[in-house]
Parts: sequence; structure tokens; C-alpha cells
Amino acid sequence: MGKLARPGPGKLQFIPLGGLGEIGKNLSAVVYGNDIILIDCGLAFPEPDMPGIDLVLPDITYLLENKDRVRAIFLTHGHEDHIGGIPYFLKQIQVPIYGTRLTLGIVEMKLQEHQISLHPKSHPVDPGDTIRVGSFSVEFFRVNHSIPDATGLIIRNPVGTIVHTGDFKFDHTPVDGHVADFHKLAQVGSEGVLLLLADSTNAERPGYTPSEKTVGKTLDRIIEQATGRVLVSSFASQVHRIQQVVESAVRHGRHVAVVGRSMENVVQKATELHYLDFPEGTWMSLDNILKQPANKTLILTTGSQGEPMSALTRMSTSDHKKVEIMSGDTVIISATAIPGNEKMVARTVNNLYRLGAEVYYGPNIGIHVSGHACQEELKLMLNLVKPKFFIPVHGEYRHLVHHAQLAREVGIDPSHVLIGENGTVFELTKDSAQIVGQVPAGKVLVDGFGVGDVGNIVLRDRKQLSNDGILIVVVGMDAQSGLLVSGPDIVSRGFVYVRESEALLDEARSRVKSALTAMEGGNLSEWSAIKALVRDTLGRFLWDRTKRRPMILPIIMEV
Amino acid sequence: MGKLARPGPGKLQFIPLGGLGEIGKNLSAVVYGNDIILIDCGLAFPEPDMPGIDLVLPDITYLLENKDRVRAIFLTHGHEDHIGGIPYFLKQIQVPIYGTRLTLGIVEMKLQEHQISLHPKSHPVDPGDTIRVGSFSVEFFRVNHSIPDATGLIIRNPVGTIVHTGDFKFDHTPVDGHVADFHKLAQVGSEGVLLLLADSTNAERPGYTPSEKTVGKTLDRIIEQATGRVLVSSFASQVHRIQQVVESAVRHGRHVAVVGRSMENVVQKATELHYLDFPEGTWMSLDNILKQPANKTLILTTGSQGEPMSALTRMSTSDHKKVEIMSGDTVIISATAIPGNEKMVARTVNNLYRLGAEVYYGPNIGIHVSGHACQEELKLMLNLVKPKFFIPVHGEYRHLVHHAQLAREVGIDPSHVLIGENGTVFELTKDSAQIVGQVPAGKVLVDGFGVGDVGNIVLRDRKQLSNDGILIVVVGMDAQSGLLVSGPDIVSRGFVYVRESEALLDEARSRVKSALTAMEGGNLSEWSAIKALVRDTLGRFLWDRTKRRPMILPIIMEV
Repeated sequence: MGKLARPGPGKLQFIPLGGLGEIGKNLSAVVYGNDIILIDCGLAFPEPDMPGIDLVLPDITYLLENKDRVRAIFLTHGHEDHIGGIPYFLKQIQVPIYGTRLTLGIVEMKLQEHQISLHPKSHPVDPGDTIRVGSFSVEFFRVNHSIPDATGLIIRNPVGTIVHTGDFKFDHTPVDGHVADFHKLAQVGSEGVLLLLADSTNAERPGYTPSEKTVGKTLDRIIEQATGRVLVSSFASQVHRIQQVVESAVRHGRHVAVVGRSMENVVQKATELHYLDFPEGTWMSLDNILKQPANKTLILTTGSQGEPMSALTRMSTSDHKKVEIMSGDTVIISATAIPGNEKMVARTVNNLYRLGAEVYYGPNIGIHVSGHACQEELKLMLNLVKPKFFIPVHGEYRHLVHHAQLAREVGIDPSHVLIGENGTVFELTKDSAQIVGQVPAGKVLVDGFGVGDVGNIVLRDRKQLSNDGILIVVVGMDAQSGLLVSGPDIVSRGFVYVRESEALLDEARSRVKSALTAMEGGNLSEWSAIKALVRDTLGRFLWDRTKRRPMILPIIMEV
Repeated sequence: MGKLARPGPGKLQFIPLGGLGEIGKNLSAVVYGNDIILIDCGLAFPEPDMPGIDLVLPDITYLLENKDRVRAIFLTHGHEDHIGGIPYFLKQIQVPIYGTRLTLGIVEMKLQEHQISLHPKSHPVDPGDTIRVGSFSVEFFRVNHSIPDATGLIIRNPVGTIVHTGDFKFDHTPVDGHVADFHKLAQVGSEGVLLLLADSTNAERPGYTPSEKTVGKTLDRIIEQATGRVLVSSFASQVHRIQQVVESAVRHGRHVAVVGRSMENVVQKATELHYLDFPEGTWMSLDNILKQPANKTLILTTGSQGEPMSALTRMSTSDHKKVEIMSGDTVIISATAIPGNEKMVARTVNNLYRLGAEVYYGPNIGIHVSGHACQEELKLMLNLVKPKFFIPVHGEYRHLVHHAQLAREVGIDPSHVLIGENGTVFELTKDSAQIVGQVPAGKVLVDGFGVGDVGNIVLRDRKQLSNDGILIVVVGMDAQSGLLVSGPDIVSRGFVYVRESEALLDEARSRVKSALTAMEGGNLSEWSAIKALVRDTLGRFLWDRTKRRPMILPIIMEV
């Protein structure tokens, strides 16, 4: 479609470019007149059908086409699916970024790795602060989540007020003592809110998400009873989890070491900014803690998702340089498996058991709670904010559908509840909300240094190579006579174990040679004909013999 | 290790070759003197790190080395992980196979596809029947599972009695009215059982598995309330689930069509053998049912795991030739996602929602129950059988560990509880049980027609190809002079999108050319030196530029 007309006077647009129909790469635009502000700038992790891809970014074609109107990015919190896209974004569009201290702290660590700086107008904010950008006035308000300093946004504008929850839960006994800003939500709700955009991650789940403190209690009990070493793995950014583990360690006379780059980084930044408190004498280097008695040892480690290169995974396969799991160790995997990671986590658990550890894992024993609101909390948010219109965000399509159902249940007019996807253009006035069109939206794949250079064709080839390998057929043709001069030579990779399959490859070779010789002088002056002949002959032969379809790559050397 | 000595007099060996440390490819040997009998003969599904592999079989080296002593296979039930290996097994070792009618019926359907027959001495049995083979007397006893006609085995032998539970749960209100044979278990338990081998699948789960009938009730409620079409997806072999759905359909005036090859096959075989009862006039062909009013339509379909080629998955992506999902359809996914399949199922659910269907899915709404016993049932089995020795089977290592813990909890001497892996040789006498050694055990990978010809090297290559693709570098060398005559030409697949990366490939080409020219006449008479130079030069260049490591395949044409 052509360039989307900017919204006319009295019209506000909400355009998600990532985060709808998926959990990942959150990035949304709010558009009024000449001003576009962005909410979050995340990345997504590759799907199983994206081999070799490192990460996935949202397609920002729409923003590039309107570059002159993009004013600022407002960050809700410091998770990768909300900030991971920033280094790539800033290489294309430089705008100020606003977020809470820990959020911006994590962003800065990330930008250092890419050797870029924040726009000079960027600065950290505290919950309660308001930033004015163009026709927008954006106020940050506190919510609870699985990372400290998480906020939602109240976006005021001539057309009306938008409330974006960020990722949230309601924790009435949060570890840092900061509850979500119920008062602010009630206040803005009674002022009148035009549109609510809310986190749909747990919209399928009835009830409410338990407090983070319940996990602290359970972990404390396990740590208290452990007679040997304790190893605890959680998401690196779960600072409140780490805080509670540290406090348990202190309570039960154990030193604490931190292992794994991402956790070491977050712990360092969080401690620097006073989100994490390591009491004097608790922290110890890994080398030192390994000399301590087992019952005075607690190791915080990465690897709660069974990630192949992570510390805990390497320990579980006896591949870690320093830490050897032994009988008597207690390992607590204080996380749940993100969908897609279940087998990797299971593998790590099995291997830890094989090494004689006692392992605590799984969603039902109180060692982890979600950072996202379940149905009762989502309904509370809806009833506090009392929006005129509601668009569920941050979820796969099924989550959005369930969240829309909740909105109808609390009494929002069904025609005021809109479900869309990335690229959907929602247009609002004081009295109406509708979908008016679509902008480009999609995935940009990052592989190594390459951004966007791996597309469907390359992926399709990788999948074929992955399934059945490749055969390269090299023939030397005399350019003048069109006669076969040398070959065909066949080299294969990923197809069969050559030493055991010589007969098959010999026969393949002679089949191709016969086919080429039979065609000599005729069509063979056309290289494309030669290649087609090789592919057909060999392809058919291999399918009949093996029921496999390796990629066939004919190469013609002109001699 | 060398050939394992056959057990001496008074010694019995239990040797699992598949099914321990995993859920899949169940195959175990019980060895006494000159006789080896086998329990089950299954396959496993490929892991994500086995690209292109169709299925996985157990390594039967030990059985081939002792071929003359293998007497028979006893099947507990008809699931793929218990019978799927039979066609491949029979091509190497022909022995009689015994199992219940439905089990053997499914095996026969499978053998027809491979164009093999059962050994003439094979025949179906009824629960309660005993088969004598060599020094063994094997009695089948009824259990409940997620397929009808599931049995356990009582293996009597001069050394002692072994009870193998097969895959089981205890359903007190089974759909077919046949409870598990508690009386037989109690009887053999009071006779005295040497060894219990029991199903560990749900050993992590407290409580008990609800009756299959509870699902029937929930499905009935949903079907009753549905105003449009109903589509129900379940495992094809879940005959009792299908029976209940059919009965609901009849109760609520709906015809039933069956869609999807595996389900059509099982429904046909189960109806033939009277395990499934389709009341007169209920069944309708798909073509006919599509002409019926929506509220008189129920379609049973494959695809409960989101399998890419399955009927429901194709319907969800609007790719099914006949069935179009529409608003008003109710889709019930009456299964849970097998670990590893969660994302595929979620994708199907999301797509069904997009098409406007109402979707029932997930483990917590009563639309599916497991076929495996949870902790209370496992303890009941232990207390009925009262074995002297206990070896948990049918589970990953973590499941075996939890099951062993249950055995200790009910009072079995901890030194009488043994945990092993595939290949472990457990040796028992009247009074002792210990691990005495190991036989070869492992995976045999099947890809197309090839059995075992895809091994670690081929898989490793496929993974590299999958991640970063391949570059083929062709150079023509003058055989006498050792001079570079033509090329290097570079062809890539799965690496970059060539049209956008010409500059990169041009530079790669000239780098390699320079390196080769610089070395001319010197080492270049050694082809291996040329190839190494190409790989090093190109590999380093590409890593520096792209941070990717495609496979590099140098090909030298002698000219």
C-alpha cells in the first residue's frame, strides 16, 4: 500500500509494529499530527524454522518513511523483548530514549557492546515523572514485573488519554516494597481514559499470579534444608529473585558467587544502581567459593532455560571449566521453561540427576512465579482504568482473544474492543475507534553482522540442506564442442556417510554421465540445459533409491 | 566390551535397549540360559538436533550377536513407541510376536506398508492367556491406558517372577468397562514377585490421573452447547476418546466424519475388531458431511500435535482441500502437547482463532487426561505387586529418579531399587539384584530408506549447513605446472541472498585468488594444501566480515 496518510485533526493512531500476534519484539507507534512517539523497541528470539538466525527485529519501514516525525522512544522496562532492538534502531533513526534508571542502565550496557551512544537528550526518569514530546505528554507509573523499575505509560494528548500497562502483574507484597501505582490508575481512570493497551501474556490463566515473596519463602526452606552446596538458576534480570536468594544465603550462613556473563552483568549494574543489595562479606568470587565448605556455598548461575552455552548447562554435561556437579549438590531451577525450551530444560535436569544432584524444577512446587498478570489482575486493571476503548497487546493471537473476552466480561462494549496484528492501523477520535488500514510489518532477521540479508530463499535453502544435505556435481565441458571432458565428480555433504555409501555414489555418477553423454552436442551448449539434466537425473535416482531429496548443485567448468 | 557372558544357572538378566533415560523406542530383553525374550519393539521420534531424520530405532547389536537365542517378542500395547520398530526388526531377526488383538491388528497394518509378514507362529492373545517360550511362561494381564487392549506381563521363570506393567494407569470407570486386573496383581503379589518394572512417565506428578470418562463428560457439555460445526482432534489411537465423542455426537444429533489418514486407519481397524462402535447411520463421508447443516456436523480429525502435514494444521492455514474453518466452528484439541510440540500446537490454535473458530485447548479445562499413572497409582501398583526388587522403566532419567523415590517411600529397601540406562545389564538371583555390566545401546537413525547410514558426521554437517549454509569454491589447476588456470568461482547456498551480496562475494573471490596466486608453484602441487588454503583464507574473511561460519567446500578441477 502507499504511504499512509497522517491522521487528520482530532484523530490519533496506534500502530503496533511488533508484539501483537507474538510474544517478542515489542514496538508500537502512537501518531498524532506531526508527532510519532514509540513505545518500546525490542527483539524476538528466532523460531525453530529460522535456522542460523540470531535474533529477529521488527520491520520499521513505516518509521523510516516517516523518519522526520519520529520524536522519541519510551521504554516500559529492561527486558530484551522491549529493549533488544535499540542498537539496530539507533543505527537508522536517532531519537531520545526515556526510561527508568535500571532500564536505561541495561540499555547503556547493550549499546556499549555495539559501540553506539544514546541520543544526548535521553535521560532516566522516575515513576511519576512526565516527559513532554511534541503534542504528547507521557507520564511513567510504577507496575510490578519480573524485573525492577518496570513502568506503564499514561500518554496524554488532545484527542484523549492512552494508558499502556507495559508488562505487569499486581504484587501486593513486592520484594522492593513498591506496589503498583493503584492510586494513579484509579485517578486517571476517573479522569477518563480513551484507550487501554494491556499485557495479554497470561490472559488464558484464571486467578491471579502469586507474589514474588512466595517464591522467596519456598527457596528459603529449600536452602535451609540443603546439606551440601546450593546452586540457583534464574533469569539474569530477575533481580528480586536474586535479592531473595542472597538474603536466604546470608540467613543460612552461605557465601554467594555469581556465574554466567549475563547474570554477572545484571548483578553488577543492579548493585551499582542500588536495586540489589549484597550485604558486606556475602559476595565471593567463584574461585574462592569453590574452596569453601559445601554447606557454606551458594552459586547463582545462568542456564535456567537449558541454553546450550550457559553455565548450568555446561555444568550438567561436565563441561564447565571450574564447577563440577557432585552428589550432595542441590540445584534449584527457579524459572519455568519459555515455550520452545522445554526439551532443553529437561535435558539439563536429567543430566544433573545423572551427576547425583538433587534438583528442584517445574512449575508446580513454588520455586517460580510469573511476572505477568492473570485474569483477575487483568480485570482489576480494566476496572481501575475504565477505558472507553480496549486493544489487547503483548500476546499471541490466542492471548489477545482471551483478553478481549475479559474486557467484554467486565462490561466494555464489544464494539469498543479491537483485536489487531502487527501493522494494523487503529485510528481513534474522542468517540470512535476503528481499524483503518495496514502498514508494512514483519520480521527482519539478524545473522551475525547481517541485518535483513537472510530472507525466505536463504532460509528455505538452509532447511533443505538441513534435512537432506547437498550433492555438488562438477562437470568439465569443452566450450567449443559441447562435449563432456571431465567428470561428473560428485561431492556430498550432509547426505550420507560416504565411506558406507560408495556404491550408491558410484552409480549416481554413472547415471549422470550416461545422461550427459546421450545429450552431447545437442542441447548441451546451453549450460542451463546441462544443469537441469543433472538435477533431474540425479534427483530422480536419489529419490527412488533413498527417499531423500538433497540439494543438487551442478557446477560446470568451461575447459 | 566383549560379548556378554550368558547368565549362569540361577541368574536372570534384564537388559533394556530402549526406553530408559527417554520416552520412546521401548525394547527390553529378559535373558535366562539359552532363552531371550523381548518386551516391546518401538521407535522414537527424532530430536530437534537430528535434522532430516524420520525416526529413531534402538541399537540391537546385542540381539544380533545373540540371534540364535532370541525367541519371541511380547507386546504390551499398540503405541508407536512400543511397536514402531517391528518392521525394521523383522528384517534382521524373525521371531513370533504375541500381543492383544488390537495391538497385533495395528502391527499388521504397519507391516503391510513395509510388505513384510508376521512370523507364522505369531498370534493374538486375550488378557489372562499365557504363552510358553523356552524357560519362560508369559501371562498377559489387563491394564488401562490411552489405547484399548493394553496389557502388562507376568513373566514366570525358574529364578523368579517378573512383572512388567506396560504403560498403565488405573481407571476405575473405563470407557470399555474393563478395569485393570487388580485381582491378578494382588494374587501374583502374594505369590511373591522378584522384580517389578513399572511405567515412570508421570512419576513427577502427585495425585492420580482422572478417569477417561471425565473427559467424555466435558466434551459432551461442549458439544451440546456448540451452535455450529464441531471439530475434535485427538491422538488417532485414543479409541475410547473417539468412542465418547461419537456417543456425544449421536446424543446431540450430529453425524461424524473422520479426517486424516492415521485416524481413518485406526478407526477402521478398531471398528473391524469391535473396539469401536459407530452406531448405524452416524458415520458419514467427509464429502457428505460438508453438505449437512453445521449443527449436525462433527468432524474427527488428526493434528492434535500441530503436526505440519496433518488435517487440522492444514485447515488452520486454509490449506485443506475440503474443509474450511469458519466463524461459528468449535474446535476441541482433546490432547496435550507432547514436550517439544508446544509451539506447533500454539501456532495451530492461533491460526484457528484468526479464522474465527472458538477453540478449546490446553491441559487445565478437562478435555484430556493422561494415559499414565501418577504417584498414587504408582504406589498402589508397588503395594499390590510387593516386589523384592524394583527397576523403574519408561521414562527420562528424572522420571526414573522420582519413581525410585516412590518405591523407597512405600518401604522397598533402597538397595533393592536400581536405576539404569539403555544397555545396563541387571542381573538377578532369587536373593540379589545388581548391575553387572553394559551392552551396546544407542540410536539408529532412519532417514528415508536409509537405516543407520546417517550418523554423527552427517548430522554435524547438516547442522552447520543449516546454520550458515555452504560456499563451494571451484578452482582449475594445471596438473603439471601447479598453476591456477581458472577460477576461483564461488557458488553459495543458504549463506546470503546473492543479489544483495555481490560485493561481498566478489571480494571473497579476489581474496582467495590472491592467496592461491601467492602460493603458486610452491606447495600447490599438494591438493590438500590448496584446499586448506582456500578454507582458511575464505573462512577468516567471512568470519571477520559477517560473523558467520558457512561450510566451505573447495573443489579442484585438474585441467
